[in-house]
Amino acid sequence: MPTKGERTKAQIVAAAAPIFNERGFAGTSMSDILAATGLEKGGIYRHFESKDELALAAFDYAIQVLEARQRRALERTETALERLAACIDVFRSSLTHPALRGGCPMLNTAIDADDTHPALREHARQAIVQWQQLIVHFAEEAKAKGEIEAAADCETIASVITSSLEGAIMVSRLLRDPRHMDRVVDHLREWIAGYQTQASTMMSR
Amino acid sequence: MPTKGERTKAQIVAAAAPIFNERGFAGTSMSDILAATGLEKGGIYRHFESKDELALAAFDYAIQVLEARQRRALERTETALERLAACIDVFRSSLTHPALRGGCPMLNTAIDADDTHPALREHARQAIVQWQQLIVHFAEEAKAKGEIEAAADCETIASVITSSLEGAIMVSRLLRDPRHMDRVVDHLREWIAGYQTQASTMMSR
Repeated sequence: MPTKGERTKAQIVAAAAPIFNERGFAGTSMSDILAATGLEKGGIYRHFESKDELALAAFDYAIQVLEARQRRALERTETALERLAACIDVFRSSLTHPALRGGCPMLNTAIDADDTHPALREHARQAIVQWQQLIVHFAEEAKAKGEIEAAADCETIASVITSSLEGAIMVSRLLRDPRHMDRVVDHLREWIAGYQTQASTMMSR
Repeated sequence: MPTKGERTKAQIVAAAAPIFNERGFAGTSMSDILAATGLEKGGIYRHFESKDELALAAFDYAIQVLEARQRRALERTETALERLAACIDVFRSSLTHPALRGGCPMLNTAIDADDTHPALREHARQAIVQWQQLIVHFAEEAKAKGEIEAAADCETIASVITSSLEGAIMVSRLLRDPRHMDRVVDHLREWIAGYQTQASTMMSR
């Protein structure tokens, strides 16, 4: 059982995550967090030494929320190709049903912290690296099992999928039009399907 | 000839643009701008009523810089398909030779202002809309001239190109690795080439 202190700490992080995600590090003040949690200043500083420490914890929490959603999307898959497809499809609902208010925390933190906050930047960097590694892993598995052609370049698949989906979040959110995301998801699905081997196409019928 | 006042105003905007681009609206203070221009506070407030007014002017200037680079890339093109390709290729150098310090101003401003600054957000929205319209225009021209297949969906081409390239800037900058951008550019070029009609392929040989 978590202690009362641990529960309070977790509540602060969960309340802070969407605020940092929407407003960025410089745009978020500790009084914003106080207002969202209903705590006194001392109640937050008992658990977090600084705004920096809270921002890092809030980012890590945001990534856990995304990873949990991704794990659920992967649960129903059987082949490596289905797992690749699930990694793409999970983004379709990310605009209408965002896991966290304010868009993608990797994208927001990457842009927000890139030239200004090295520690936050490093957390965002690790999150993208892990996501790309997961896609490379599924692509290599799909190749090893003969589901996709040996000519498919796994690093390219990871670069293109992560870049396109992150960019589609930006464009769709800015234009308040989820069709940009839908078109990108459809495009990526068709592109990956184009690598399918004939044996795998026949099996999936 | 611009007056001395107009020249000073233009110098302030050119100095402010990379600062806002790197640090975002909330992360930029007027004293940052003062330090960069060497002017006194009064010297800036004579030309700009507020930080908001300066930020909007700096964003519009940043977009002009991008558009000038794009125009130069389009100069050498002859066919509509070449113009589409040039819109993609121009991004290859955007990491090693950025038009403006701090990455893409559309991406940065979209993320920075999305939930916090409606006027800046609107300028970013217009910039993306115009860029997408240009790509739709070239794609429709390529279709009308029989350079690409009639089945190609111009709106999809615009959504995928703009999303992928913006996302690739984010990923490549965050990972300090221009290969992600190279892979995305190569992928988009191959994808568009796949729509080429046989007649057009033969002509371009």
